[in-house]
Amino acid sequence: MEMKPVVGVMGPGAPDEETMAMAEEVGRGVAERGGVLLCGGGGGAMEAAARGAAQAGGTVVGVLSGPDPAAANEYVTIRIATGMGNARNVVNVLSSDVVIAVRGSYGTLSEIALALKCGRPVVALQSWRLDRIGLDDELFHVAGSPAEAVRKAFELIT
Amino acid sequence: MEMKPVVGVMGPGAPDEETMAMAEEVGRGVAERGGVLLCGGGGGAMEAAARGAAQAGGTVVGVLSGPDPAAANEYVTIRIATGMGNARNVVNVLSSDVVIAVRGSYGTLSEIALALKCGRPVVALQSWRLDRIGLDDELFHVAGSPAEAVRKAFELIT
Amino acid sequence: MEMKPVVGVMGPGAPDEETMAMAEEVGRGVAERGGVLLCGGGGGAMEAAARGAAQAGGTVVGVLSGPDPAAANEYVTIRIATGMGNARNVVNVLSSDVVIAVRGSYGTLSEIALALKCGRPVVALQSWRLDRIGLDDELFHVAGSPAEAVRKAFELIT
Amino acid sequence: MEMKPVVGVMGPGAPDEETMAMAEEVGRGVAERGGVLLCGGGGGAMEAAARGAAQAGGTVVGVLSGPDPAAANEYVTIRIATGMGNARNVVNVLSSDVVIAVRGSYGTLSEIALALKCGRPVVALQSWRLDRIGLDDELFHVAGSPAEAVRKAFELIT
Repeated sequence: MEMKPVVGVMGPGAPDEETMAMAEEVGRGVAERGGVLLCGGGGGAMEAAARGAAQAGGTVVGVLSGPDPAAANEYVTIRIATGMGNARNVVNVLSSDVVIAVRGSYGTLSEIALALKCGRPVVALQSWRLDRIGLDDELFHVAGSPAEAVRKAFELIT
Repeated sequence: MEMKPVVGVMGPGAPDEETMAMAEEVGRGVAERGGVLLCGGGGGAMEAAARGAAQAGGTVVGVLSGPDPAAANEYVTIRIATGMGNARNVVNVLSSDVVIAVRGSYGTLSEIALALKCGRPVVALQSWRLDRIGLDDELFHVAGSPAEAVRKAFELIT
Repeated sequence: MEMKPVVGVMGPGAPDEETMAMAEEVGRGVAERGGVLLCGGGGGAMEAAARGAAQAGGTVVGVLSGPDPAAANEYVTIRIATGMGNARNVVNVLSSDVVIAVRGSYGTLSEIALALKCGRPVVALQSWRLDRIGLDDELFHVAGSPAEAVRKAFELIT
Repeated sequence: MEMKPVVGVMGPGAPDEETMAMAEEVGRGVAERGGVLLCGGGGGAMEAAARGAAQAGGTVVGVLSGPDPAAANEYVTIRIATGMGNARNVVNVLSSDVVIAVRGSYGTLSEIALALKCGRPVVALQSWRLDRIGLDDELFHVAGSPAEAVRKAFELIT
């Protein structure tokens, strides 16, 4: 059986409206291209991305930091409860073929770093810009719009 | 959206033929009743249960102890890579609505114990018999056959 | 430099008086024999064992399930905060040369199982009796008293 | 009992000579000021920092990514084996009162991000410069020399 590509979408738990809209558009784009959306399963950008994917008919995997599957947002179709706090971020990136970071703060930065450490390519959508501090890594890419982020992410899946 | 129940099926990585057949029958039964099968994603009883569920058209979640999703057995439809060794067992039980233990050794015993600790009901199919040492817990049940194990598991889902 | 042996002492978080006294005596015995005591760092049997070891001048490592080192009981000298819930139990057993289980419930049973899975010998002090259900494993031993448990534990360290 | 401050020193596993020397000087400084050194327990900068601290008579905690305490470098006095791969990084930062990042790559960046996420202050010694990308956070500080890094770290401990 051919596996669908898994695209991890990471972002802040309490973002502004514009970030929510971007995350939702990314989630929709992932599903429309036939990818499985993986996210943290919580609120904010995680929920927006999940909603976008779910409304486009996609499968949504939510990997929760807490111990209770019922805490997942309503758009998650496969709930993974870790009860491991931030160590959940490792599961997020290892389980993704490619990671899209939508803006975000330290949690998202940790996921970018862990993804690169684990050899998973990253597309940073108006997010942390490692290239600004001299990083030149073929795993790290930037995007200016949700559509560009999704397009680049699928190009990076091998 | 109504969530499908998630049934975790735990068992040995290197079982005998009979145990493999039992795990496969359990997996098939879970899928036939409309449940999502969750397992460790590896070989042995995990693969047998996954095969049973997949052949009945079910969704199979594999939560791997290693860091590489590609190490999942071929019947897994949703691959979760933890890279956390035995700590993966915690994710297995937290993500399940009910756990069926098919025979098994220490790894399976740890999953039974963690499930009970976390409030998840357990059906032990020719597995560890906590009741033999005086345990009386409404979360812990025993079954003699795969069919009985599946039936009891679905009865325990609230 | 010669490493001191590390003895993990596992037991319930909310035990009765007698269990507390047993855990304290075990902790004291570990320190008197020159071992480092490792425990979960919390209250109940963990605190009693830590107090026994600390009062005998020993080093006490507390591996906490929560994210805050300050939550450790007052007898812990080295605080490890995991924030990983029950996955912390894996760290407990992997970091111990031998594990003494003092009575205990499901959490303790998970630690016994994980220890055996990981090849760490276990002394069960009035705790789970795997031998009653037919287990014959050279890694698993039982003890009737704290003194016997400590003596056996140090014999098992290779 | 007054707890000694715990200073986490993070850095690359395979650094150049100069980075090794810097990590060793940081480790020595931590011990000379009465701090406990916490590190990843492995080779490279982790071993150099541990050597510096041990030679100054300090306690060295090594939190290993692998399952075997014996894999710790020879300067570690307290060995914590997690078997959790990169999820170990979470334990590193949660268990530290302050984190010093000595140069480093993605693993170190993940520890910086996780530390900030978890509210632990960070001193970056010729390491990732979050301030260059517009970050202004009172938890994040930079240092140009090992001596400055150690001095700042102890000032940040509350």
